[in-house]
Amino acid sequence: MKSIIASVQEFTEPAFRDRAVTVARGGAPFDILIAGGTLVDMVTGEFRPADIGIVGPMIASVHETGSRSDASQVIDARGAFISPGLIDTHMHIESSMVTPATYAGAVLPRGVTTVVWDPHEFGNVHGIDGVGWAVEAVKPLPLRAVVLAPSCVPSAPGLETAGADFDAAAIEEMLFWPKIGGLAEVMNMRGVIDRDPRMSAIVQVALTSEKLVCGHARGLAGPDLAAFMAAGVTSDHELVSAADFLSKLRAGLTIEMRGSHDHLLPEFVEALNTLGHLPQTVTLCTDDVFPDDLVEGGGLDDVVRRLVRYGMKPEWALQAATLNAAVRIGRADLGLISAGRRADIVLFEDLRDFRARHVLASGTPVARDGGMIVGAGSIDPSPLRGSVKLEPLRAEDFKLPATAKKVRLATIDRPRFTNWGQTDADVVDGYVVPPEGTTLIAVAHRHGRVDSRTRLGFLTGWGKWKGAFATTLAHDSHNLTVFGADPADMTAAANAVIEAGGGMAVAIGGKLEALLPLPLSGLVSDAPMEEVAEGFRNIRAAMDRVVDWQPPYLVFKACFGATLACNPGPHQTDRGIADVTTGRLLESPILEILE
Amino acid sequence: MKSIIASVQEFTEPAFRDRAVTVARGGAPFDILIAGGTLVDMVTGEFRPADIGIVGPMIASVHETGSRSDASQVIDARGAFISPGLIDTHMHIESSMVTPATYAGAVLPRGVTTVVWDPHEFGNVHGIDGVGWAVEAVKPLPLRAVVLAPSCVPSAPGLETAGADFDAAAIEEMLFWPKIGGLAEVMNMRGVIDRDPRMSAIVQVALTSEKLVCGHARGLAGPDLAAFMAAGVTSDHELVSAADFLSKLRAGLTIEMRGSHDHLLPEFVEALNTLGHLPQTVTLCTDDVFPDDLVEGGGLDDVVRRLVRYGMKPEWALQAATLNAAVRIGRADLGLISAGRRADIVLFEDLRDFRARHVLASGTPVARDGGMIVGAGSIDPSPLRGSVKLEPLRAEDFKLPATAKKVRLATIDRPRFTNWGQTDADVVDGYVVPPEGTTLIAVAHRHGRVDSRTRLGFLTGWGKWKGAFATTLAHDSHNLTVFGADPADMTAAANAVIEAGGGMAVAIGGKLEALLPLPLSGLVSDAPMEEVAEGFRNIRAAMDRVVDWQPPYLVFKACFGATLACNPGPHQTDRGIADVTTGRLLESPILEILE
Repeated sequence: MKSIIASVQEFTEPAFRDRAVTVARGGAPFDILIAGGTLVDMVTGEFRPADIGIVGPMIASVHETGSRSDASQVIDARGAFISPGLIDTHMHIESSMVTPATYAGAVLPRGVTTVVWDPHEFGNVHGIDGVGWAVEAVKPLPLRAVVLAPSCVPSAPGLETAGADFDAAAIEEMLFWPKIGGLAEVMNMRGVIDRDPRMSAIVQVALTSEKLVCGHARGLAGPDLAAFMAAGVTSDHELVSAADFLSKLRAGLTIEMRGSHDHLLPEFVEALNTLGHLPQTVTLCTDDVFPDDLVEGGGLDDVVRRLVRYGMKPEWALQAATLNAAVRIGRADLGLISAGRRADIVLFEDLRDFRARHVLASGTPVARDGGMIVGAGSIDPSPLRGSVKLEPLRAEDFKLPATAKKVRLATIDRPRFTNWGQTDADVVDGYVVPPEGTTLIAVAHRHGRVDSRTRLGFLTGWGKWKGAFATTLAHDSHNLTVFGADPADMTAAANAVIEAGGGMAVAIGGKLEALLPLPLSGLVSDAPMEEVAEGFRNIRAAMDRVVDWQPPYLVFKACFGATLACNPGPHQTDRGIADVTTGRLLESPILEILE
Repeated sequence: MKSIIASVQEFTEPAFRDRAVTVARGGAPFDILIAGGTLVDMVTGEFRPADIGIVGPMIASVHETGSRSDASQVIDARGAFISPGLIDTHMHIESSMVTPATYAGAVLPRGVTTVVWDPHEFGNVHGIDGVGWAVEAVKPLPLRAVVLAPSCVPSAPGLETAGADFDAAAIEEMLFWPKIGGLAEVMNMRGVIDRDPRMSAIVQVALTSEKLVCGHARGLAGPDLAAFMAAGVTSDHELVSAADFLSKLRAGLTIEMRGSHDHLLPEFVEALNTLGHLPQTVTLCTDDVFPDDLVEGGGLDDVVRRLVRYGMKPEWALQAATLNAAVRIGRADLGLISAGRRADIVLFEDLRDFRARHVLASGTPVARDGGMIVGAGSIDPSPLRGSVKLEPLRAEDFKLPATAKKVRLATIDRPRFTNWGQTDADVVDGYVVPPEGTTLIAVAHRHGRVDSRTRLGFLTGWGKWKGAFATTLAHDSHNLTVFGADPADMTAAANAVIEAGGGMAVAIGGKLEALLPLPLSGLVSDAPMEEVAEGFRNIRAAMDRVVDWQPPYLVFKACFGATLACNPGPHQTDRGIADVTTGRLLESPILEILE
């Protein structure tokens, strides 16, 4: 199909507009006529019968059912509900572990026609070149992707080493690119609020660019929230409760209501139903979707579906996902089925399961009955290869040496919401014996920028591990991260990942149980969607044999956030145990020699 | 006060943001604290107690009542309702017959802090220089004015002669100016729909500029409306009924709900109440407000007040006038009381009369208890003087010569919604005797671009005139337009206006009854607001002695639209009787010689 760029040019061409007006008046047939359906009106909230005439990439007419029949192609919309294409206002394609083209092929047949993509993970691994690759990768896609400049690479400067370091000059360079829509989620909240010069300068160049300044305002309230907003940040998706949601809404932030924390959605729906209307500042996003969840549940369509299941009116869920989102991203050509707007259109079979019968992007039918009918337009992924710059590891790399009999160790207590703890441990044969109730975490820098010696830490509250897990997808620096109890298992898992050029591996009893190669950036695969999903399912299944999960805290997903040093509390990084709140960094967990 | 420009610069300055964040966190006092009021939340629709802290031009914090008291200045908001400043999305300052500075002084104390101004009348008289003067005139104002490029100068090319002619090149030049926010109401609807090359090119340069393309879609429906929108026009204020309003809303146009047609507002309110929510695409505008109405009723505040009186929830009326308007004009810094946004704030005494206790613009208190507390910042108006390029007229200029005994005349039937008619008339002493039931209309080109000989026409349905009315404010070309029955009265009125350098005059029995000098552009006065209002009241009163008005068609206001040649049906212009629908132009109303 024509690229989005080509259709952008066509959209403002005089000859094209001449034709569109002529066709709208009835002087020539439509290219496509969507006939017999029920329009979900994003302005009035009404469901009303209407036919839609399309010329090139544009909607030329929305008119009474049956009043026109002249068209090169007629799409039968009888029984279907017509909505603008869904717009995901905050997401990371990398979280689905596939290329942008594969992602497009997964979500377009579900009705998602636009995503606002923060290629933060590619940025952390490859620096500006990674973001540049992302910009190039979306150009040939039938999925519209607004690419943002990752604001926090690394997430906690000085406490971790990513593959790059974006200072204000780097951000400014990216914001100059026309395809960059703004500054992606500003996660270094303390840096903004405390006026850390680096973070202040980054937000400042975004303000000067007059592009979007997106946020990540986890836990912020009161003066801190005001300060974060006074600095120029205008959105948030890090909502932790209905009270937090309402407080952020009242504060005037644009809400990117996030599907990835499903347990919160029912209370958000209840809060909105109590309010009695859908504020125009509520949009929807996926943030992160694992590949198997993407295949089984979907992308933004799944957020819409679940919200409706939890009691939201379908017209509200769709309005949040379309018109409200378009307004947020400053795209007056999207989000509404209206003459003169871009023909990004979905025909849903119903407003409960939201199965998409037809999907059009910029006037081109791109998917039908759940499958793509056009190619997805990929680019050469080879610049993303070879990103795991590590030699094979040895069992010693997962053992903590000490010249003593007994030591006091710092521990990282509880998954997800971590606290500092401590415990005592024996030393045998020159190595610390991991104390009962702890799980070992090892992080090795894998970008070749600093030494790659593993830094070790002890987690508590992670249950009893019967094997090991290694991953190069580890937020946000994506260094090689290995969890386990037994150094042999950890070595086996780690080396499988290193050999695959990146990915995830599970080992039990010294034997590899499952491997998902992610050879691009150590984050994504260029294998087909279903193959990546299956590989990840295998990893999950193997991990179920390794750990007895205890939701909502001890969950598999917590493994990927265990290194996210920008979050409050201690986190293991390639530099040691880091605490962004206090600035504390322990290279070794050994606090003192006891004997 | 500081100009808006200065505060724009300050808004993005790093040092300013540093200070705002520090103050928001509690590290230093606010410049201004608005304490003890009830915030009308434009997002949630709630009324909730909140205090607002301001730093420079910005809102730095919206917080719990009483939680902060440190501020250089405290504004007592107890008992008051706090709203963002009102935004008028479509208006012509010239209609109020005063300078921009005087207009600002009239509306700021009422809570209007932003207007989207189409300086169409200055453009018609002075061309690009007139629009340039408008851009300069708003710079020092405490009122924020987004100036648009007038799209239809003249309104009906070839059928009238204005002071200028804006082709696509002229429009493109204006759209390049940073202060120009877009293309103003595209009134030449047929030109757009029929792909007239001139009008198509004008819309096209606006599309390419990526600025707003505003509309005037009077009477459009069905294929014509679709075609108008497919051409790129995105808004309308020319609503004629609730059905028309709903049809335009469903079509996806942004509605600029207009206060100047008061009789329609109750049915608009009823339609919205039936819908059950306020769509985000509904904004409010004044369009044209006469000077006495401005003094007595107000500007956009009066539209809000009347909507509430007709049964709209006050939070809806305010949302339409603030957040929805800000979204329409692409100003993410306006329309919401929210940290990080611009401190354009009104404190209303109540939500019935909407009297403004305090008004702040960009963080500066500009008005209090109905009066300005800062200067309005005027510029030199002398470039607008000397625009009436006419020698005194004689009685013969208001008589139609004919070398016959009896003639058949074309007539312009009915005020406001005109039709072609015809009647027979006697000729006595070489001049046509105006037939019973007709009123004479004479238009003389006054811009010095073509001959200024009066063109005469006969109106029917205008009642029996007991005097004459002359005006240089006559849409849209603003040629000297004179109505009456008696050439002596018409001469007296016309010459009074010419001598005043423009304005309006009423003469009865050969004697001047009232004169409102409008020496700037023949449209506005640099006299104080009250003096202009009083002058216009005198004109109205005198006109009540000349004509027995019969609303809703035969109203004084109809005099100013009698020459508006872009509207369907016959209209008298400086070139003759013009009909834009058919392209017919009769230089003389004499259709044939009967005897």
